[in-house]
Parts: sequence; C-alpha cells; structure tokens
Amino acid sequence: MTSKILLGIDPGSRITGYGIIAQQGRQWVYVDSGCIRMNSADALPERVLTIFQGLTTLIERWQPTHAVVEQVFLAKNADSALKLGQARGAAIAAAVTQGLTVSEYTARQIKQAVVGTGSADKTQVQHMVVQLLGLSAAPQADAADALAAALCHAHAGENMRKMAIDGLRRGRGR
Amino acid sequence: MTSKILLGIDPGSRITGYGIIAQQGRQWVYVDSGCIRMNSADALPERVLTIFQGLTTLIERWQPTHAVVEQVFLAKNADSALKLGQARGAAIAAAVTQGLTVSEYTARQIKQAVVGTGSADKTQVQHMVVQLLGLSAAPQADAADALAAALCHAHAGENMRKMAIDGLRRGRGR
Repeated sequence: MTSKILLGIDPGSRITGYGIIAQQGRQWVYVDSGCIRMNSADALPERVLTIFQGLTTLIERWQPTHAVVEQVFLAKNADSALKLGQARGAAIAAAVTQGLTVSEYTARQIKQAVVGTGSADKTQVQHMVVQLLGLSAAPQADAADALAAALCHAHAGENMRKMAIDGLRRGRGR
Repeated sequence: MTSKILLGIDPGSRITGYGIIAQQGRQWVYVDSGCIRMNSADALPERVLTIFQGLTTLIERWQPTHAVVEQVFLAKNADSALKLGQARGAAIAAAVTQGLTVSEYTARQIKQAVVGTGSADKTQVQHMVVQLLGLSAAPQADAADALAAALCHAHAGENMRKMAIDGLRRGRGR
C-alpha cells in the first residue's frame, strides 16, 4: 500500500515554507520541511521561477498527491497582497501542473486543527507541530506553518472518516 | 532567419488577455489574440491551471521567445490585488517554465509607446493597436491591452536599437 503524502505550502513574497508529511498506518510522520528563499535583488520572473522550480523539485522527489495551502482572507495592504498573490499563483501552478489536488484552509481552521483553538498564536502552532510530529527541534517559522497546513488536511480527513464511521454507527444503532 | 515573436499578457482574475505579434523585416504584424476566461464557479487551483495551461498551449503553438506583462504599481484594494497577483503568478510561471524571458512595463510606458502619451485612455490604446497592426476590427479589451504590451516591447527594442545607432553616430561624429 502506498502511504498518503501531503505537501503543505506557505507561500510568501520573500520566503515560501514547505512541509511534507506521510501517513504510516494511522500515524502521520514528518518527511521534510524547509524554505525556498527568493533573492530580493531578483526581478519578478526570476522569483516566480524560483518558487515554481523549488516546489517542482520537491514534488518530483517526494511524490505527494495532495497540496495544502493556507487561504488568505484579508491581506494587509494592496501592495503586499499583490506580491503574496504572485507567490501563491506560482506555488499553486507548480502543484496543479504536477497533477496534485490542492486544498485551502483558513488560518483559523489550521490553528483549530493543530492547537485545538482557532485563536492560537504562532508559537503555539509551532509547539504543536513539534509535538504532533515528534520533532527534536522547531522548524523555521514558514516551514512550521506549511507543516501545520498539511497536518490540518491530514486531520480533516481523519475527522471526516471519523464522522462517516460515527454516522454509520448511528445509522446501525437506529 | 526566424522572425522575433512576442507574447503580450494582460493577466486578470476573471479574464487574461493575450496578444501575439511577430517581426517581419522592419514591421511588426498581428499573429493572434484573445482571452482566457476563468470560470467564476471554479476554485483557485482550477483557475490557476486554466491560465497556466491556456498560455502554455499558446506558447507551444506560436513559439514566442519573449513575454511582456504590464507592471502593476497600485492595485485598487487588497482583495483584488491578491486575486490579480495569483493570476499574474500563474501567467508568469507559464512563460518562464517554457524558457521565455519576461519584461514588465508600466501602463504609462505602454500608453506612451503605443499612443504617444502616457495619459492616453483605453479607447485610444485600442484604436492605436488596430491602426499599428492594420486590424479590420478592434480586439476584445483585454486582448487589445496584451497586444499593446507586446507592441510597447517591440518599439522599446527599436528605440533602444535606434538609440544605440544614434549613439554610434554621435561617437563617430566626434
């Protein structure tokens, strides 16, 4: 049986974090995480290529079947939103052109899934990523966010399966 | 001699215009133009794929060596900037992954190059695109903007060559 592999992506105009987790039996285990750093001196086309190629290399290496990206609801301002959007467009293009399905979750959903409360702060998210994956050290902030997004999808799937089983049991119990 | 082929792109969150022109001798001639329309019911990954695949198909068909995109300085608001950015990221990713070089020009530079004044309105730009390329009818608005971007780069190249020749002449005349 091939285990399920998820790629979490935290796109940014300067740093794009990524985190890869794999399902082993009932557990999700850490595979890889890190950052794709854009050279601030590079023009937009080079930065887009850096994100696209960086993620493509990771996808070819780890063969995830699903990507998870944090949904952005309210960007700070128009200028940063444009830059963030460009990074997101390039990142999502890399995933979809390799045939991955892509899910989006809000920051609130990710915090809820990983920490248990939608109002958790970044430090709590990082702490729980370390705990849930049994890491020896905290990953870089953007890599931790990407791992959290992947974990959110992993748990959302489990919750949905759990809900389906619970529904089945309720149905049987009638 | 292979003629130079330029792809102008006007990325948008709902419609991405494109325009292709080719150099024939000293002239730039119309090759193709149109729109890639996003289905508003589609989620972001599908829309990104629509832009990416639409442009990839065009690039494979017409083999341009250079893409031209309008540079965005001031987006209207953060929400529209994010959506525009995502479309731009996907469009530029399609170009750079096919090995095209990409140039950006401001709206002012494009208007200056095509109409002769940086404060020209959209109707004037469309009118001049029709005139410069000898078209029988006005292309759709976003396609016209994409053709204008391509024409701007075509003329910028000519101006640069002209400047270089003028510089040479001035050098010789010393």
